[in-house]
Amino acid sequence: MSKSEELKSDKFQRRALQVKEAQAKVMEYAKMLDLEEVPLSSSSGRYLAEDVFSPHPFPAFNRSGMDGYAIVASDTEECGNGNVVWLRIVDDIPCGAVPSVDLTPGTAARIMTGAQVPTGADTVVMLEVTELQVKDGHKYTGIRKKQEAGRNITPCGMEIKQGELVLPAGTLIAAGEVAVLAAFGVHTVKVRRRPKVAVFATGTELLEVHEPLSPGKIRNSNSPMLEALIREAGGEPVMLGAIVDDLELARSKVQLALESYDLVITTGGVSVGDYDIMGDLVREEHADMLFNKVTMRPGSVTTAAMRAGKLLLALSGNPGACFVGFQLFARPVIGQMQGASHPFLPECTAVLGADYTKVNNYTRFVRARLENREGIVYAIPATIDESSVMVTIKDSDCLVIVPPEDKGLAAGAKVTVLMLPK
Amino acid sequence: MSKSEELKSDKFQRRALQVKEAQAKVMEYAKMLDLEEVPLSSSSGRYLAEDVFSPHPFPAFNRSGMDGYAIVASDTEECGNGNVVWLRIVDDIPCGAVPSVDLTPGTAARIMTGAQVPTGADTVVMLEVTELQVKDGHKYTGIRKKQEAGRNITPCGMEIKQGELVLPAGTLIAAGEVAVLAAFGVHTVKVRRRPKVAVFATGTELLEVHEPLSPGKIRNSNSPMLEALIREAGGEPVMLGAIVDDLELARSKVQLALESYDLVITTGGVSVGDYDIMGDLVREEHADMLFNKVTMRPGSVTTAAMRAGKLLLALSGNPGACFVGFQLFARPVIGQMQGASHPFLPECTAVLGADYTKVNNYTRFVRARLENREGIVYAIPATIDESSVMVTIKDSDCLVIVPPEDKGLAAGAKVTVLMLPK
Repeated sequence: MSKSEELKSDKFQRRALQVKEAQAKVMEYAKMLDLEEVPLSSSSGRYLAEDVFSPHPFPAFNRSGMDGYAIVASDTEECGNGNVVWLRIVDDIPCGAVPSVDLTPGTAARIMTGAQVPTGADTVVMLEVTELQVKDGHKYTGIRKKQEAGRNITPCGMEIKQGELVLPAGTLIAAGEVAVLAAFGVHTVKVRRRPKVAVFATGTELLEVHEPLSPGKIRNSNSPMLEALIREAGGEPVMLGAIVDDLELARSKVQLALESYDLVITTGGVSVGDYDIMGDLVREEHADMLFNKVTMRPGSVTTAAMRAGKLLLALSGNPGACFVGFQLFARPVIGQMQGASHPFLPECTAVLGADYTKVNNYTRFVRARLENREGIVYAIPATIDESSVMVTIKDSDCLVIVPPEDKGLAAGAKVTVLMLPK
Repeated sequence: MSKSEELKSDKFQRRALQVKEAQAKVMEYAKMLDLEEVPLSSSSGRYLAEDVFSPHPFPAFNRSGMDGYAIVASDTEECGNGNVVWLRIVDDIPCGAVPSVDLTPGTAARIMTGAQVPTGADTVVMLEVTELQVKDGHKYTGIRKKQEAGRNITPCGMEIKQGELVLPAGTLIAAGEVAVLAAFGVHTVKVRRRPKVAVFATGTELLEVHEPLSPGKIRNSNSPMLEALIREAGGEPVMLGAIVDDLELARSKVQLALESYDLVITTGGVSVGDYDIMGDLVREEHADMLFNKVTMRPGSVTTAAMRAGKLLLALSGNPGACFVGFQLFARPVIGQMQGASHPFLPECTAVLGADYTKVNNYTRFVRARLENREGIVYAIPATIDESSVMVTIKDSDCLVIVPPEDKGLAAGAKVTVLMLPK
């Protein structure tokens, strides 16, 4: 059999991998990128490259939770039934200040919310329930009710002890993480570089978004969609336009992209037709192809290869299949390159909101919308469910996994869904 | 009563608004910002300013869903039991091309996935199940099985009819919306300008993030957190540092910010203590204060004012209260300024995962973590639940609403939660 006959024959004899096998293959080659330091203010959306331990307890001192008076609780034993206890005010502690004296029984310190509680005090009485008196040039605060020790004081280390692991490496940084990092003085953050992800579309049928529609043609919606998805996943998209159906040209363009960027994603050209350029390209050298068929719908033709030490993901040209292929393969790869601790789409259980009758011998990833009804999560499959369909992508927030062995699923069945990151 | 005595007395006599009343007040003044056009490639995360109707059906033609042969299904009536029907191949339609002839019975057209199905054809047979024969210089495709009409063809307009409302104004643009816009040739998108949001912190106790810790002081974690939250909400944060406890200086700084930016957010300085600069500032001119107390915990001191035609939101300095205040008031304002159709945090129902015993006469917004157990959503309240607490912000993905009338809630109770946008 000649080389070209062999290739031709391969088109019909692809060995299909299970999704998890295929995912494991690409993840094996998704290497973490280099460390870089970014200012805290631009760290949102990045992944921590190193564990962060608390350098000091938080709060770092016994902190007042009220504006009022720091006192010794036992001084108020006799309060109640109209009996007012008067305590001499010996200090005034604004926020950020240090108490000037320790507190002894019979005394009080005026204290602000957030200020350091003086040694000796064990409770803070809120300002609103106190009275003020001046006698012999001294100020006194009057308290009418018995006070409990420990009230309105946040003890040193209450939130976080010193040396605690506060944020493990691989954590996605958002507002709450920024607050913690700021509190511990982390003004520059070690993260992994964002992967530069090159995107090619294939297909002579494709018009650019700004071009007027012409018969038989469609506008390229996959590239802009991928651009948005890559950014959403933390990557830096590099849009390299369309590859026409010329194997030589495709090879050199892809090769150049692999040398220049961290990951190359293509859409289209992976089916079994005559013009399936990406399929031909990865089949040329068997050694570097990781897979060219996955037991999934949509996107069974999803293809992955290693070249020049870089990953090439060739996704289907069908918008729905391209989207699912991105979520199952490209997103985890882009996440892992950034050191994400949970690069895969999170799984959860839902109740199927409508019958799903379409089955075959591949696992289906059905675009669906989650609905919370009285605390129970329902997944409502998109009404038009074809791999080519583009319009349902925007309305979906999960993918329902329909296993191949089922003869369809009835409404009410428990299903596993993959949560989309919208 | 002198002006200053009046102010003093006001500190203890704030009229508290319900959360929804307070939200309505700020939303009344959150005006939509100007239109601007952005390239499709940078429209993700923005809100559509105008309805988008489909300028043409999608797909715009009957589209083949397979690589194979477009045929007339009735030609295959006699197939089966080893009987092969041979159809003369009269056309070859790659993607993006227009069929050169209409199909008549007895003929077939080689067609690619995504190509325009010729008039006359009513089904596409996949390449893998066909045979090829050349006879008298003509090519024939052989079909062994009876074919059903309508298979492997996506009819014109199947996804979207012409003139349909595809994306209503106020839609948040993400990858799925980008795909739709691209498909319809929308290469620049009309959106509302992102609000410029100025942020001040108040408090002499605050250290900058890079400063070493010193006794009684804390690092300013609220400003970096707000910076991240504003960006997450689609705003452009403008960080203006800290305001020291000087009323004159505060007034002029805030005034300048109100003149220069679309919204001003401050943290701290709204309690009832002596140094509560923001509280004093908004009380100065009664006319422009919208509220300075809300029946909520944390964040009851959350304050809002209108000045110079702009909104000033003065959030609590307690990190937890600042966070909740942002989510309930600032986020919807920032969303509405961008024309978001759903600016408030989405509500849903969950089952309380643990007893919650802390109650008082205000509505509580308790930070919690959602957990899906076999399709049922549980909300697990954070173990440390104080308004001052910062560490639980990062671990929360919702706020459980605990109404004031309840005497605590037992595990298993149905609760309403507000979903956080992480």
